Amino acid sequence: MKKTSRIEIRPERLLKDLRDLAQFGKLTTGVSRVSFSEADVQARQWLKTQMESAGLNAEFDAVGNVHGRINTDARSIIIGSHTDSVPVGGWLDGSLGVIYGLEIARSVMECGLESHMGIDVISFMDEEGTYLACLGSKSFCRELGDEERSNGQSPSGERLPDAVERSGFGENPVIEIDPARHLAYLEAHIEQGPRLEAGQKEIGIVTGIVGIRRYRLEVTGEADHAGTVPMSMRKDAGAAAIGLLHSLFQAVEKAKGPESVWNAGSMQFEPGAANVVPARAEVIFEIRDLEPAILNSMESSIHETAERISLDGDIGYLVTKTIDIPPSAMDTRLSDHILHSANAIGASNMKMPSGAGHDAMVLSRHVPSAMLFIPSINGKSHSEAEDTSDKNIIIGCQVLAGSVESIALS
Amino acid sequence: MKKTSRIEIRPERLLKDLRDLAQFGKLTTGVSRVSFSEADVQARQWLKTQMESAGLNAEFDAVGNVHGRINTDARSIIIGSHTDSVPVGGWLDGSLGVIYGLEIARSVMECGLESHMGIDVISFMDEEGTYLACLGSKSFCRELGDEERSNGQSPSGERLPDAVERSGFGENPVIEIDPARHLAYLEAHIEQGPRLEAGQKEIGIVTGIVGIRRYRLEVTGEADHAGTVPMSMRKDAGAAAIGLLHSLFQAVEKAKGPESVWNAGSMQFEPGAANVVPARAEVIFEIRDLEPAILNSMESSIHETAERISLDGDIGYLVTKTIDIPPSAMDTRLSDHILHSANAIGASNMKMPSGAGHDAMVLSRHVPSAMLFIPSINGKSHSEAEDTSDKNIIIGCQVLAGSVESIALS
Repeated sequence: MKKTSRIEIRPERLLKDLRDLAQFGKLTTGVSRVSFSEADVQARQWLKTQMESAGLNAEFDAVGNVHGRINTDARSIIIGSHTDSVPVGGWLDGSLGVIYGLEIARSVMECGLESHMGIDVISFMDEEGTYLACLGSKSFCRELGDEERSNGQSPSGERLPDAVERSGFGENPVIEIDPARHLAYLEAHIEQGPRLEAGQKEIGIVTGIVGIRRYRLEVTGEADHAGTVPMSMRKDAGAAAIGLLHSLFQAVEKAKGPESVWNAGSMQFEPGAANVVPARAEVIFEIRDLEPAILNSMESSIHETAERISLDGDIGYLVTKTIDIPPSAMDTRLSDHILHSANAIGASNMKMPSGAGHDAMVLSRHVPSAMLFIPSINGKSHSEAEDTSDKNIIIGCQVLAGSVESIALS
Repeated sequence: MKKTSRIEIRPERLLKDLRDLAQFGKLTTGVSRVSFSEADVQARQWLKTQMESAGLNAEFDAVGNVHGRINTDARSIIIGSHTDSVPVGGWLDGSLGVIYGLEIARSVMECGLESHMGIDVISFMDEEGTYLACLGSKSFCRELGDEERSNGQSPSGERLPDAVERSGFGENPVIEIDPARHLAYLEAHIEQGPRLEAGQKEIGIVTGIVGIRRYRLEVTGEADHAGTVPMSMRKDAGAAAIGLLHSLFQAVEKAKGPESVWNAGSMQFEPGAANVVPARAEVIFEIRDLEPAILNSMESSIHETAERISLDGDIGYLVTKTIDIPPSAMDTRLSDHILHSANAIGASNMKMPSGAGHDAMVLSRHVPSAMLFIPSINGKSHSEAEDTSDKNIIIGCQVLAGSVESIALS
């Protein structure tokens, strides 16, 4: 391809769009914009209007994805994320990646690169899973089955098909990925963790999105009066669960890889009264890593610990896997373009896994995909405390724009 | 005192009364007879009629205690317990001790001992604490303050004074303990634990009622995304609580006495989501023993463990004592009478603490008191599974009757 002028994003325009978008569902500093809410639908209408003003062909699709593409015969890079939020969310989160896409599409057209490379900007619907996690990206990638779609339901009990109808998206066409036209998917996102800030880096180049395996650990003993039954005659499911987790933490620590994380986020005793020996304890335990082999090793350590401990006495231990999301590797060639772009403008950077799920998890199964992180102040996200400095927001967009240019010209 | 004929209880009459009483609030095998319920009030009216038929001076008092005394100028032994139950309770529980009192009062009169020794039979109100634990015995012992009385409230929100009025007890006189007349309090009860059955004993001679100290353990960390925050950067209150309890169990094991028991009956993580590192954990931990020195030693071990662990990092540990019920020693002279009575009729027996609270806890502060346990099948109580063999019910009453005779003639 022949050399064109450089893609120059306009920082003020980028920041203004982000701040305008944050008015929809605005809280004190964050946003409440769950999918299919009035605020979410209005934000998507605003986005479509912005796309049209920028000269993109913009439309809603059948699940509420907002899609805007540069009118060109060239192949295209998809840039996007999602504009829906958790019930009390931050102003950046997925919005960042969507507005980066809008800004880069505008800049591509301004510098005349569009005859070589198109941009499809997309805001996927319901990445946060109010009704169905990654609904929009699954629909876009033809992964959405009829049954899964009709089973989608909000915490307040509204069914997904009803939400789609209520919001007026039901008449729109399905918009799907086109392997003949789409070269790559690029998603920028705030890190949602403390590593870039702690490492004093401006850019995180995501090596992959971790796999998640979740387990329900059930420990079964027998309820007894906590005063009248001697210690030696109890079958205390609570004390047994403490022992299990104490050993489990040690076993997982041995089985882990360098990037592994795990969490016992929920623990409950039944019946849960001060004067009753617990009859049952339930723990939700999850592990995350990029490497299936490490996930397997940690999973084995969980089963082995429960089996070993169960030999000690009359307590029952049951380990049930309830969730198994495989890791998603990011495309190394695309990630190298991001790395070169960051280095070219002197943005400090590091490689890191994404510990949270993103639409890129779905897209990566269908098109080469890559992700770029920018720092989260104090590592906070999914809360009103979520924020990133203007400087870092601008650098992130410049690095992503540089990556697009580098891909287009490669 | 001169020798009279021996007190001979009548087993069939005893068992019939227990079974008749179990018709009030009857479930399949247990009873539902919470204090001030229709079933409870009807059972008390039935009891008063039985007392009158037996020739006792019977009356209700101002809180619903049913009191029936032999009409004699002699000093008197109080024999009783309570006829109210937990919401789904067993047919024996406190009823046993009340009907033992009725049967022994009848037998005392039948054998002509009443000129030497009176019997006061009493069914205390609300031992189970639907409104206020040990309401009846506290009232009887002048321990019931006006404020405590007006603060009493049922789980459904009815205030104690309203329950008293609704049940028609408000007009009755207060009946109180009379140190000039009352020599002793004897309470028989099912064991509510497995020790007599396991030890193949027919009678438990209660050395005392354990003290209970209860603590709220609060562990404070910081909520974080369980995927994006590296293990080394977390302040995981859940994992810290597991570590605390693991160490606490070991420390208490070292500090305990031979009869000590303890229980972590409730444990909760907040916010309690699988993908959020727990910000806070709360545990309810209690210890029970007969000896204040041992309770002190266990309490110190709790504080020392929390303090030692808190030196490790950024996690907050707060130990708050929420309940402190001192142990109640039973009168050794009275207990010896029970022992001699059991040995005289060849009833196998053992000394043991009561791990649960009873009206005797209150009475023992005002009059020499003793308790006798009979076995609970499979150690069960406060459930429909609660039961004791007819043989053991009869032996218990014979031993208690023999104790009365032994006290009267001593």
